Amino acid sequence: MTTQPRDDFVAIVGAGDLLTAEAIGPDYGHDEALVGAPVTPAYVARPQTAEQVAALLAAATEHRIPVTARGSGTGLSGGARPCPDGLLISFERMNAVLEVDADNQVAVVQPGVTLADLDTATAAAGLVYTVFPGELSASVGGNVGTNAGGMRAVKYGVTRHNVLGLQAALPTGELIRTGGKVTKLSTGYDLTQLIIGSEGTLALATEVTVRLYPRLAHSATLLVPFADLPAVLQAVPAVVRSGADPDILEYVDNLTLAAISYTQNLSLGIPDGIRDTAQAYLVIGVENRDRDRLDGDVAMLGELLDSLGALDLYVLEGNSAHALIEARERAFWTAKAAGAHDVIDVVVPRTRMHEFFTRAQELAQAAGAGVVGCGHAGDGNVHLAVFCADDDVRHRLLHDIFAGAMTLGGAISGEHGLGRVKTQHFTELEDPVKLAVLRRIKDAFDPARILNPGVVLNERDNR
Amino acid sequence: MTTQPRDDFVAIVGAGDLLTAEAIGPDYGHDEALVGAPVTPAYVARPQTAEQVAALLAAATEHRIPVTARGSGTGLSGGARPCPDGLLISFERMNAVLEVDADNQVAVVQPGVTLADLDTATAAAGLVYTVFPGELSASVGGNVGTNAGGMRAVKYGVTRHNVLGLQAALPTGELIRTGGKVTKLSTGYDLTQLIIGSEGTLALATEVTVRLYPRLAHSATLLVPFADLPAVLQAVPAVVRSGADPDILEYVDNLTLAAISYTQNLSLGIPDGIRDTAQAYLVIGVENRDRDRLDGDVAMLGELLDSLGALDLYVLEGNSAHALIEARERAFWTAKAAGAHDVIDVVVPRTRMHEFFTRAQELAQAAGAGVVGCGHAGDGNVHLAVFCADDDVRHRLLHDIFAGAMTLGGAISGEHGLGRVKTQHFTELEDPVKLAVLRRIKDAFDPARILNPGVVLNERDNR
Repeated sequence: MTTQPRDDFVAIVGAGDLLTAEAIGPDYGHDEALVGAPVTPAYVARPQTAEQVAALLAAATEHRIPVTARGSGTGLSGGARPCPDGLLISFERMNAVLEVDADNQVAVVQPGVTLADLDTATAAAGLVYTVFPGELSASVGGNVGTNAGGMRAVKYGVTRHNVLGLQAALPTGELIRTGGKVTKLSTGYDLTQLIIGSEGTLALATEVTVRLYPRLAHSATLLVPFADLPAVLQAVPAVVRSGADPDILEYVDNLTLAAISYTQNLSLGIPDGIRDTAQAYLVIGVENRDRDRLDGDVAMLGELLDSLGALDLYVLEGNSAHALIEARERAFWTAKAAGAHDVIDVVVPRTRMHEFFTRAQELAQAAGAGVVGCGHAGDGNVHLAVFCADDDVRHRLLHDIFAGAMTLGGAISGEHGLGRVKTQHFTELEDPVKLAVLRRIKDAFDPARILNPGVVLNERDNR
Repeated sequence: MTTQPRDDFVAIVGAGDLLTAEAIGPDYGHDEALVGAPVTPAYVARPQTAEQVAALLAAATEHRIPVTARGSGTGLSGGARPCPDGLLISFERMNAVLEVDADNQVAVVQPGVTLADLDTATAAAGLVYTVFPGELSASVGGNVGTNAGGMRAVKYGVTRHNVLGLQAALPTGELIRTGGKVTKLSTGYDLTQLIIGSEGTLALATEVTVRLYPRLAHSATLLVPFADLPAVLQAVPAVVRSGADPDILEYVDNLTLAAISYTQNLSLGIPDGIRDTAQAYLVIGVENRDRDRLDGDVAMLGELLDSLGALDLYVLEGNSAHALIEARERAFWTAKAAGAHDVIDVVVPRTRMHEFFTRAQELAQAAGAGVVGCGHAGDGNVHLAVFCADDDVRHRLLHDIFAGAMTLGGAISGEHGLGRVKTQHFTELEDPVKLAVLRRIKDAFDPARILNPGVVLNERDNR
């Protein structure tokens, strides 16, 4: 090997887009995970084309340099945190919406495009990309990496249900195309689905074809206080089965509601009597193309919720609805501001959420720690802010909480991914037979093991 | 190796459920593919438990005996056609609905359960499994194998969008569990999705967790004549975007409609004047929990279709609607009865269907062959009956038709799978880089290459 990695990378993207040492800004060293220190990579490359991405991977494979992909850096599990001797590929210059194809109801985008920009582009066509993981500055490529979910998943599914095709660069330097502008496909192993959620460890998406839906004109948000969490969770299946097809179905406890209301300066007009009695709230979003039908759904849900023990019901519209949803989406920042040491996003069958909460509280108490949470009640996807300063105590606590979720038929993460922060828990708790299969799949794509080592599978000690 | 394969298999399932030679009935030798002769396997095993399936695979791996899985044998691509020296694992004794979990809106079933039985079990809970590939005697396990689609996919997606979890037996003899009663998951590579559509070449599903939806009380079927195919296909995107959310959106040409009406003895009440003018029909299904809303949707679609050039509109209800849909679903049998030599199910972006039809007609004409078709217009999934007796001429014709579909951004199969009948076309036409990745994935699961050799990837000459 006669060339230096740096020279190879510069030859591919140009000197202006290959950063080293002091030229590497602090943002490149981390995502939004609360655990772990930033890491400055040896190289940052900002490719502009798929071919450049593929060439970077080929060079990295040749030089055995670990490669981490970065979209907007909004991940919560450290999946975009680079290796100190590694190459960070930032997709910031590949941020174009290439096509909004209204008749096939798809958009074709570069991976660095933000959800906000995609939303603007699709709105012009009366369509919408329905995956809203709560952070509009997130990139589509990052969403593909973690199989991002968010609130609307209860109606529209998660990223994997809304991505129809990819162009992807293999670590061996080839570009492949998978899927396309079609929803039906039965031609061998689904590489689109395999790459989605692989957190940049199998291949890097260089183009993404997403499914769009008609953008519905009318929506309403219901804030529904209940006596306690079991009452909320008992109402959830009935709401799902009602046929109102909610696109939001969130559980918020009174502590979290108070915190997000306070920090986001949100006034919801809840009378003191209710505020003192209600320990838990359900937030329900419904939408319709037709105003009268929306009103009918709200009325139907009102009756249904009343019969299910709701203490009251507030129909929020316009600004206050928007503010509540935004505040709920910013619950992570509230937890961070409150000094949470980690945030987890366990998933369990939705009927097991109360059992899970109870168990998590017990475990936290026993560890001298605290957990406060809210969740996507329709999906059984629970977000818990964990307050526990000691790293070892917290690791054992999370291990036990994750094990509890798995025992209930759930998993460590519903939408945040494993990243550098949760991978060790995953490898400790997952069936070794399955881990061995994952390892062989990894090697099928990435024989030199350059892609995001230590994420999904342990390769370095990332505790 | 001291034991005989037969002894090992008998030790696992018992002598009564291990068939050889004359004890093997003719049904085990084929599925419903029109191409290729039946093949009697060396062994047929009828396991009753997942553990027996895993043990059979371990023994087959030890003895290097090819294994083919069989559900109901309703596939159209020869995916269940066994190898002459092979073991056929029939799931006929694993046909129980294990659980209908109404609150989580899932069912847990054994792979041999038929769609008809699952429909009965879910109906009792007011729910429905929405994947209807057109043959209710098909098994869920078979549907998992081919990623079956069908008419309702335009609203509800295909099998992969409706299967949340699996228990599966690996060819190396272990059982794994993937996914579960949750729709959100971000914990490494999605093995559920990888196994779905792999046609029994990676692992065999021994239990399937499927997603259910509320069963809606009211439905209507619209039969809409148009002057020609381009007029039909131009209307499709507008119908999809209307918000009426059709669960059926089928294209039927006048020849096919005449044939299915005649063979199914179906009277649709179309006046002679329209029948003589209309060359193409759109069939639209809509459903709603509320009768008034359904009527509103039908009225709205009526106006929309009128503005899009529909020659007339017939709202079918009850028996005639049911009869039309059933007749359309039986189009395959009509084609078979008419002497079709093969049936293909190409998929293209829905806006490219006319181009595809035109190209397929040109290619058929040049080859002295005939193609007649209908299709899932909402999905771009085209079913063509191919009339061409000569095997070599037909192979070249299909090669060219498939290549044409791929050029338009489509694929060889939308829902039938590759099986023994289409795999050679796939390996001839697919990107060699992708084929190499598929091969390595195959080896990650099945190092001895015992599972359905020659399907998805060429291992024997199956032309």
